[in-house]
Amino acid sequence: MVSKSQIKLITSLGQKKYRQKNGLFVAEGIKVIQELLNSDFQLEKLFACEAIFDVSEDQFVLADVRDLKKMSFLKTPQTALALFKIPQQDLEEVLDELTVVLDGVRDPGNLGTIIRLCDWFGVKNLVCSKDTVDCFNPKVIQSTMGSITRVNVVYKNLAEFLQSQDLVSYGTFMEGENVYQKKLRQKAVLVMGNEANGISLEIEKLISEKISIPQFSQSQETESLNVATATAIFLSEFRRK
Amino acid sequence: MVSKSQIKLITSLGQKKYRQKNGLFVAEGIKVIQELLNSDFQLEKLFACEAIFDVSEDQFVLADVRDLKKMSFLKTPQTALALFKIPQQDLEEVLDELTVVLDGVRDPGNLGTIIRLCDWFGVKNLVCSKDTVDCFNPKVIQSTMGSITRVNVVYKNLAEFLQSQDLVSYGTFMEGENVYQKKLRQKAVLVMGNEANGISLEIEKLISEKISIPQFSQSQETESLNVATATAIFLSEFRRK
Repeated sequence: MVSKSQIKLITSLGQKKYRQKNGLFVAEGIKVIQELLNSDFQLEKLFACEAIFDVSEDQFVLADVRDLKKMSFLKTPQTALALFKIPQQDLEEVLDELTVVLDGVRDPGNLGTIIRLCDWFGVKNLVCSKDTVDCFNPKVIQSTMGSITRVNVVYKNLAEFLQSQDLVSYGTFMEGENVYQKKLRQKAVLVMGNEANGISLEIEKLISEKISIPQFSQSQETESLNVATATAIFLSEFRRK
Repeated sequence: MVSKSQIKLITSLGQKKYRQKNGLFVAEGIKVIQELLNSDFQLEKLFACEAIFDVSEDQFVLADVRDLKKMSFLKTPQTALALFKIPQQDLEEVLDELTVVLDGVRDPGNLGTIIRLCDWFGVKNLVCSKDTVDCFNPKVIQSTMGSITRVNVVYKNLAEFLQSQDLVSYGTFMEGENVYQKKLRQKAVLVMGNEANGISLEIEKLISEKISIPQFSQSQETESLNVATATAIFLSEFRRK
């Protein structure tokens, strides 16, 4: 049976400060939990309607639909919810492959989509500014669909990180060079900016190559591409060659 | 002042059957409303905290923050909400340019993103199966950011539509040919499938060319790309050449 204090703990994990205090995050649904169990992530507790996973007795808590509804961050709760330990993640000292860098991405769905894209396109390291949304946010974990187990997400002071690397850095700007006509190096960092403001002034100074996706419509009103769809197109351009 | 019956009407427009019955849809926020006002869409009523738009007196209703909160479909209500008439949209008889076709896309956010992508990449016509989410759903309208005024979205029996066209049809399948190595024709239809099941069997038979985006990660577990990000990459491939 699920205790009141467990429900209180889990709902508190919607907030970053409680995730950090407890060193725990929430994953929901069989697919995501299974992938986390198959990876290096460490299970703390599993709450489920039946014993569907092979976990030790003291890690398993039988939960009914009402309990799961109280704990869930989803509109439609799944049949299982798990707590995992937040791992210590860091980078190798020097990177020599394509790395994605996020400067202030705020939307959990965008970060989740970008982690999935990194997984698809074989990008192992995703470096986020400290003001980028936390990758252990329940919505991010949900939308990564398990990709979080294959992409190393780290939070860094971006200016220091970029200065410490010898790689060419590509940044996306409206006035950047047409990415379709540009020779892209594979050993590089690709910097994507905030949803509303793009790349910050501090980071812009550290970008070696400005690139953009040309617009094909005639209208002045057309909104720029969303950061997740733009990342999809840039990663596709890096890998297609 | 906003009447109770107006609030009741507006909240009912979250459902497709009431949108169809009343021939109206909801748009929220200054940017989206302004773009609709600048287009061929016809305003029915505007509710706002102040007279920010140049509309006739009988179309304007002064609304306070509390009213807007009751009417809004957003977590954070905007300072303006408007009702527009649902237009009659149809296609030219014969298409001779790149057209996107959606077979059963269900998520409003995905449809909104795809409409924005069509706008960016200059795709004028988006043909949706009857079971694709309604483009006048408030969440779709919101996420299109005004692109709905520049993309002609029509709902059709897809099998009949595809049979009536002479264009080559590209469909996205896991086992399709590598899109990076394929010569793509510009006068074509690009068919994208449902989030969970892809393109339906009925439509698969009508596809002339199966294409795919290669996966660059080694893992068997990697989830296939989301329909909106895949559409971004395919449209980029069509236009880059």
